[in-house]
Amino acid sequence: MCSEPTIKRLSVYHKYLKEVEASGQEFISCTKIAKNLHLLPIQVRKDLSITDIVGKPRVGYHIKDLRDSLDRFLSFGKGVKACLIGAGNLGYSLLRYKGFDEYGLDIKFVFDNNPDKIDTYIDGHQVLDIKNMAEHLSKTEIDVGVLTVPRVYAQTLANKLVECGVKALWNFAPIRLLIPQNVVVKHENIAGSFLVLASRIKQIR
Amino acid sequence: MCSEPTIKRLSVYHKYLKEVEASGQEFISCTKIAKNLHLLPIQVRKDLSITDIVGKPRVGYHIKDLRDSLDRFLSFGKGVKACLIGAGNLGYSLLRYKGFDEYGLDIKFVFDNNPDKIDTYIDGHQVLDIKNMAEHLSKTEIDVGVLTVPRVYAQTLANKLVECGVKALWNFAPIRLLIPQNVVVKHENIAGSFLVLASRIKQIR
Repeated sequence: MCSEPTIKRLSVYHKYLKEVEASGQEFISCTKIAKNLHLLPIQVRKDLSITDIVGKPRVGYHIKDLRDSLDRFLSFGKGVKACLIGAGNLGYSLLRYKGFDEYGLDIKFVFDNNPDKIDTYIDGHQVLDIKNMAEHLSKTEIDVGVLTVPRVYAQTLANKLVECGVKALWNFAPIRLLIPQNVVVKHENIAGSFLVLASRIKQIR
Repeated sequence: MCSEPTIKRLSVYHKYLKEVEASGQEFISCTKIAKNLHLLPIQVRKDLSITDIVGKPRVGYHIKDLRDSLDRFLSFGKGVKACLIGAGNLGYSLLRYKGFDEYGLDIKFVFDNNPDKIDTYIDGHQVLDIKNMAEHLSKTEIDVGVLTVPRVYAQTLANKLVECGVKALWNFAPIRLLIPQNVVVKHENIAGSFLVLASRIKQIR
């Protein structure tokens, strides 16, 4: 399977090829892709070798074929069913952000424990009472639990999600979750990311 | 300077210590911190050694002192002045997300080129016409340009921001930016992050 940076770059090629395709162009060279995305041609060639598409000499890749192939390759996101827990600012932001939609993330449920939020709607998603989570998840199989809750609740909710049979957790709470080995977990720390940037600015100041 | 993972973990300790401090506790051991954050004690001890605080045998760290020290250490985020370009869904989400505030990110300006958005307000920030960016930035020094624009605009805007004297770019557009060596750049790819998670789910399916 591909490494994390490779998958991220593949998503970038995919987006870029859709743009170029929409402009009516038919072929594109590896060098051109590399130039426009500010990568090394050798990197682009290596990354794109995971597809079954071979570029023709002097002409390059057939754009539609390459995009189709990347569509298939990146289709692992298609139909990934998720529930999001925690309809606070971060949860709200993720629900509004459309960047996942094209890769197929399907947020089936949104849960919160705040009576003021329960039964309100965020971007078309009804906020449900967290108390009824197990019941909802027993009826609809969910792949990923997205945790946008305060740290103190994260592990308990992660345990419940695992009990309910989720295969993966996408954790935005500032804690390393302890979960069984057969469950995938990915941690995000956006505020920490800002601190990293800020520390680098300090170095050059 | 610390590595990216270290800084992210320090932000996690910082958040955690504020919680413990608020509960009235006075001392905490390295083992306890490690246990509650699901890290190895040796890791925590090493990370916290960047502060000037030494834990006492059998008692541990003085929580307030340790938190104060982390406050100082993580203060590089304080007063970092930013402008955000692109008031679309992602820009909107970042403006609403409060996770950066405690580390001091100060978003001074929000720019967009869409007449429907210009002069509207997002979370208290007036959306300004991108045409007037250079003028605004000549009057108020800005450290970081946050780019939440479509890929095609990202490099041009990055160049303009560099001309205006920003020290760093925080880029959420799916492109590697070409920038002078003395400018810091940090790339984020949240949609790509979802794909990475999805690819791991596929592996265990």
